[in-house]
Amino acid sequence: MNEEVQNMNRRTFLQQSVSLMAVGAAALAVPPVHAEKSETAMDPMRVPGALPRPYGERSPFETQQRLGAGGPGSPHGWGANAPNNINSTTPLQDLHGIVTPSALHFERHHNGVPAIDTARHRLLVHGLVDRPMIFTLGDLERVPAVSRLAFLECSGNSWDCWFDKAADFSVQELHGLTSTSEWTGVKLSTLLETVGVQGGASWMLAEGSDAAGLDRSVPLTNEVLNDAMICYGQNGEALRPEQGYPLRLLLPGFEGNINVKWLRRLKLGNAPFMTRWETAKYTDLMPDGKAYQFSLVMEAKSVITSPSGRQQIHPGFHEIRGLAWSGRGRVTRAEVSVDGGRSWQLAHLQEPVLPRCHTRFRLPWRWNGQEAILQSRCTDETGYVQPTRQDLVKVRGTNSVYHYNAIQSWRVERDGQVRNIYA
Amino acid sequence: MNEEVQNMNRRTFLQQSVSLMAVGAAALAVPPVHAEKSETAMDPMRVPGALPRPYGERSPFETQQRLGAGGPGSPHGWGANAPNNINSTTPLQDLHGIVTPSALHFERHHNGVPAIDTARHRLLVHGLVDRPMIFTLGDLERVPAVSRLAFLECSGNSWDCWFDKAADFSVQELHGLTSTSEWTGVKLSTLLETVGVQGGASWMLAEGSDAAGLDRSVPLTNEVLNDAMICYGQNGEALRPEQGYPLRLLLPGFEGNINVKWLRRLKLGNAPFMTRWETAKYTDLMPDGKAYQFSLVMEAKSVITSPSGRQQIHPGFHEIRGLAWSGRGRVTRAEVSVDGGRSWQLAHLQEPVLPRCHTRFRLPWRWNGQEAILQSRCTDETGYVQPTRQDLVKVRGTNSVYHYNAIQSWRVERDGQVRNIYA
Repeated sequence: MNEEVQNMNRRTFLQQSVSLMAVGAAALAVPPVHAEKSETAMDPMRVPGALPRPYGERSPFETQQRLGAGGPGSPHGWGANAPNNINSTTPLQDLHGIVTPSALHFERHHNGVPAIDTARHRLLVHGLVDRPMIFTLGDLERVPAVSRLAFLECSGNSWDCWFDKAADFSVQELHGLTSTSEWTGVKLSTLLETVGVQGGASWMLAEGSDAAGLDRSVPLTNEVLNDAMICYGQNGEALRPEQGYPLRLLLPGFEGNINVKWLRRLKLGNAPFMTRWETAKYTDLMPDGKAYQFSLVMEAKSVITSPSGRQQIHPGFHEIRGLAWSGRGRVTRAEVSVDGGRSWQLAHLQEPVLPRCHTRFRLPWRWNGQEAILQSRCTDETGYVQPTRQDLVKVRGTNSVYHYNAIQSWRVERDGQVRNIYA
Repeated sequence: MNEEVQNMNRRTFLQQSVSLMAVGAAALAVPPVHAEKSETAMDPMRVPGALPRPYGERSPFETQQRLGAGGPGSPHGWGANAPNNINSTTPLQDLHGIVTPSALHFERHHNGVPAIDTARHRLLVHGLVDRPMIFTLGDLERVPAVSRLAFLECSGNSWDCWFDKAADFSVQELHGLTSTSEWTGVKLSTLLETVGVQGGASWMLAEGSDAAGLDRSVPLTNEVLNDAMICYGQNGEALRPEQGYPLRLLLPGFEGNINVKWLRRLKLGNAPFMTRWETAKYTDLMPDGKAYQFSLVMEAKSVITSPSGRQQIHPGFHEIRGLAWSGRGRVTRAEVSVDGGRSWQLAHLQEPVLPRCHTRFRLPWRWNGQEAILQSRCTDETGYVQPTRQDLVKVRGTNSVYHYNAIQSWRVERDGQVRNIYA
């Protein structure tokens, strides 16, 4: 943040605020807080509070929730194909910082959330290995562990943005299939050293124990061997059922579905296994009719979460807030435009900026009541710059429904309504 | 981690494991996972799974919980003085990484948890300021925000360790009044620039809206002005009721109770306000009868969370895991002894190591079945080294019940039982 922006930051949001009240001496003579309440029972200072709870819950006044992706009434919502082919979105517009509460982590299921007794669950590792082995959860929890913060994103996130007409959706409905957690588990490389990898093993099948039996082929590149984890922990506690309890594969930076949940089996081989999830689904159909398989990395992407679609804002001070991430490493810059991409300002990145992790960006802004088009654009450590929608479509066409990562445009209309548009 | 340790890490945990099974060809011919189950209904792959939920919950197989501090039957547990003077502890032995799940964040209440309607809550800022003001939650959420991961620790954490006899407690019961969250809010300095600080203002009263009306005096040092936040967010969502919903003061590195929860009022003055919480309570009584007031910083401390008190272990490979933190900045090293402090090994610190934040450390260890005394000792960026209990008591005596940060000793007995001892 430059000096001028900082000054604006500190000194002018006050003048822009509509509800701040100056307090005179008379007002201070009476209890200034809760003074409007005549009933003692409504004053938290006059009644003893509640006892601790063994496992806490949020305030009943908080109501943020996950939604079926695609927005209300969308064919992608819960119900259409449930429990087959369902998902739910994280309320990005309501969240702070970079950690997504586990209760609000996005979901993508291919046949619902299995109920798994951790005491009965096993992980089999076999194929091109010296010693095929079965691991219990206890085995895995006892060996050397690692933790890291990492984002996950469904390859179908922002699906609606491929369509010709810009949907009148919120940021949650458009882009909510991404979340960040602190994951804990065993490095895949630790497990593979234990079973002994045989010469020629270059791919690994990972299979989940959901009713879809979702399985994917993972290339055993150096990058995968450095980063991949078999996870049992999420945000300090056990994985949530919706994120693969009790065990999932984590491939930081790769599309969500290959981070196989409810993991039961790893099989090493010398070629991809060509499961139906990588032939009939999860390929990228190009304009020339060719389909790319194993396009696994989620490229750099960012989105302004506030102000964002379907919000109503008022003239005056706003902090533009958003998230940026890249499947290839760290985000090195996030820029914001308030004039539809004609000019850009560097946003402040919240520290620490971690590789393959959501990065929060912020920029102060004063809205003058005129139409404005808000955009964000991020760059990652490989130098890749998030493309415009036009540039993305030029290369990829619109046959594809996966891997949409173009710049999002929010139009602030004169009445303060914020709308999704293609700019 | 040195090379030798890494090698042990990777190659030997397998040989030490008691429950790993080698899988022969015959075993592989039948479905290796869930093969023991005859009932289809128990096989998660044969029944469609559950639908998404708007706000998720943990698996019913997970049962970790907060406990009344002081352990079962202790006079410090829930009930003795409830709802006045109550607390609950984080199950440190069960958690992973550094983020504490909000549902398991420790609690310390002086008259229970107030039920506060965020729409009615206000924050008054007055005293030695140019413009006394009242802020709504909406006002605060709209101005420039910051987020950071930071630990909190009750000044009375590890209280039982001051007593002459070592209590047969778990790590949760002894040291569980500390947790880490990602906090989001407004910098105190932003708020103070808004109201205009008058000359001579050097202290600030912070008052909560619980039934205890807990209030503390905060020195307005440069460090406080750099770091202090008025928080509304915790781990991505709103503060939990037990951590101050909808608003709390955060003073990273300072003892828990001055991070005033359910914050309703800040008053600037030119001297400490001498509330009963800093005269009758929360002072440190020295051997000579003098009491230190405003001993606010939580000094560097660490504890091994696994293996730890009341756990039962078996000979073979273990990863020693623990947490280290310092109220003065970053932890620069954590060392582990398995021989009661005669020799020390450097533990691996989980990245990123953040200032005034829990830092996870890990060290591989093979238990040979003989008695062993496990200790951890951390150093922070000021060069301060966590003291032995003997050294701490030499300086502080045992009149004090706050700010215990000595090295914890766990004795592993020949039968594998782990006990709290003073070594």
